[in-house]
Amino acid sequence: MKPVNLKQLAEELGLSIATVSRALQDSHEVSAGTKERVRALAAARHYEPNAYASSLRRNQSKTIGVVIPKVTNHFFALAINGIEEAARQSGYHVLIYLTHDDYAREVAIIQHLKGGRVDGILLSVASGTEDIAHLESLTDANIPLVFFDRVCAEIATAKVTTNDYESGYQATAHLLAVGCRRIAHLLISNKLSIGRNRQQGYLDALLAHGLAPDPDLVVAGTMDNAHNLALIEDLLRRRPDIDGIFASVERLAVGAYHVCRELGRRIPEDVKIVGFSNLESVSLFDPPLTTITQPAHDIGRAAARILLQAVEKRRPVLPSQSVVLNSELVQRRSTEG
Amino acid sequence: MKPVNLKQLAEELGLSIATVSRALQDSHEVSAGTKERVRALAAARHYEPNAYASSLRRNQSKTIGVVIPKVTNHFFALAINGIEEAARQSGYHVLIYLTHDDYAREVAIIQHLKGGRVDGILLSVASGTEDIAHLESLTDANIPLVFFDRVCAEIATAKVTTNDYESGYQATAHLLAVGCRRIAHLLISNKLSIGRNRQQGYLDALLAHGLAPDPDLVVAGTMDNAHNLALIEDLLRRRPDIDGIFASVERLAVGAYHVCRELGRRIPEDVKIVGFSNLESVSLFDPPLTTITQPAHDIGRAAARILLQAVEKRRPVLPSQSVVLNSELVQRRSTEG
Repeated sequence: MKPVNLKQLAEELGLSIATVSRALQDSHEVSAGTKERVRALAAARHYEPNAYASSLRRNQSKTIGVVIPKVTNHFFALAINGIEEAARQSGYHVLIYLTHDDYAREVAIIQHLKGGRVDGILLSVASGTEDIAHLESLTDANIPLVFFDRVCAEIATAKVTTNDYESGYQATAHLLAVGCRRIAHLLISNKLSIGRNRQQGYLDALLAHGLAPDPDLVVAGTMDNAHNLALIEDLLRRRPDIDGIFASVERLAVGAYHVCRELGRRIPEDVKIVGFSNLESVSLFDPPLTTITQPAHDIGRAAARILLQAVEKRRPVLPSQSVVLNSELVQRRSTEG
Repeated sequence: MKPVNLKQLAEELGLSIATVSRALQDSHEVSAGTKERVRALAAARHYEPNAYASSLRRNQSKTIGVVIPKVTNHFFALAINGIEEAARQSGYHVLIYLTHDDYAREVAIIQHLKGGRVDGILLSVASGTEDIAHLESLTDANIPLVFFDRVCAEIATAKVTTNDYESGYQATAHLLAVGCRRIAHLLISNKLSIGRNRQQGYLDALLAHGLAPDPDLVVAGTMDNAHNLALIEDLLRRRPDIDGIFASVERLAVGAYHVCRELGRRIPEDVKIVGFSNLESVSLFDPPLTTITQPAHDIGRAAARILLQAVEKRRPVLPSQSVVLNSELVQRRSTEG
């Protein structure tokens, strides 16, 4: 059976389309009796309101866009769950867009979203992003924007992150406490604020413990995993004195494990490793990986709630606000002294 | 600067709104000179077509909906990448909905999507789904549906899966070949066709090797991971003679590792384990896990391509069709003889 549209309902009821539409929207301009007749027929005929027509009328799509680098990173998978939970509670839908850490793709996505497809955007910046004009243009388009995890310092809006600086400091201090002296830092990207903050924490922890930072021990990862393995192997071959590794992102910690195994460097006897990761199965690794675990679900949920409030109140420009949810150092065997 | 709308463009050009709209859509009813004037001003004024207005006009949303149980399962994360790749190539957008394996949520999502928000749906059935009326109703709503991975045998449409029966057979035969005789099967769900197919492969492999299947060795997992750990622990305590485990889904393989460790059962000396998994880091497990690895990205891409063809050709009902992409057994140390 083909579903009926508003016009067919109106004809069958002998009412105007406007009256039927108002009745279905529970308008006070329509009598209770008429509303009941309309609803009964709509139910009997399996009437489905057209989502696009409804959102055009209200000038709202009841949808938020989530723009993230990738979904295969467990942090983002968990954050999406948190975003989805908050959206569902408010009756909103979630559109997910992946940038694959590519600047041009991020620009194209934002350009598209400006066309009215979403009421607001949650964004975690691509590591390849160099210019922020596309993000600034959202203000002109009256689309509220909330950053989570990877933020843009230059844009004044709400931002939900973890305590990246403190986590970088804590990870490095932990390696120092278990006896490491030549600690390498595998950096997520020095273009990203989270990368710079984690790096600053690493540097300050070294200085606080009387060690001079060695620029040769800091390597920035790329978007290409095969290339990352080569970079890590080169580092460990060049500097056999490295006794600790702080990996700023999961895939670089995993990469360090692979390279250590290949080079016969034992973890934790020769090299101790701590890495940011939300992967549940790190406890099954050989040896289990000490992690900085981010509150990914909570970060997603908090960011979505802030965005949805702005959308509901029709406030396209959010006040500058920083929400910081703390990560946790979970000690496992990869850093055993 | 606030972006202009169609009406403002028309006023400034001294043309009707319809003419401007047709010019922007490259209609043959508008002269080349007028088109050029319209495009030049639209570019200068940063005109953005309203996505909802455009889709209402064309009665197409240029969006496909993806309904999956969860995004934290690596199989689905990789499948989304494949879906997104195909959608992007065709100029479509991807809406992702999570059922969390809950039947009521799946029904609510489908009900919503019937409102015209998407041009087609890719679906992997929730393990809690018991009735398929909501899926059958998509035909009445003229919305094409393609299943991937977890399919509904009763609904005639296109389906993209892996060779579940053969994979179950192969995993079991591999355990037999390395010396296992009492092989447990941790089943994803016997409500799902993929669960039943993998189970049938397991049973047939036992029979083909002259072993009588023992129903006591088959345990169906649930949506609750803590409960799954208790089920596996109960199984291994009750049956200390178990020397092999075939896990039909990643989280049950990971669960079996945790329980074996807790009970002091050594892998692979006491118990050998093979599990379905797309997790890249299984090679870092202690010991590395032998897996059945599904072509997740390819499954997502193939399903999306079939759906997009149907959408483009405005064929709401797809011919019954099964596309099977083969999984691969990757031997690692967890099944070493």
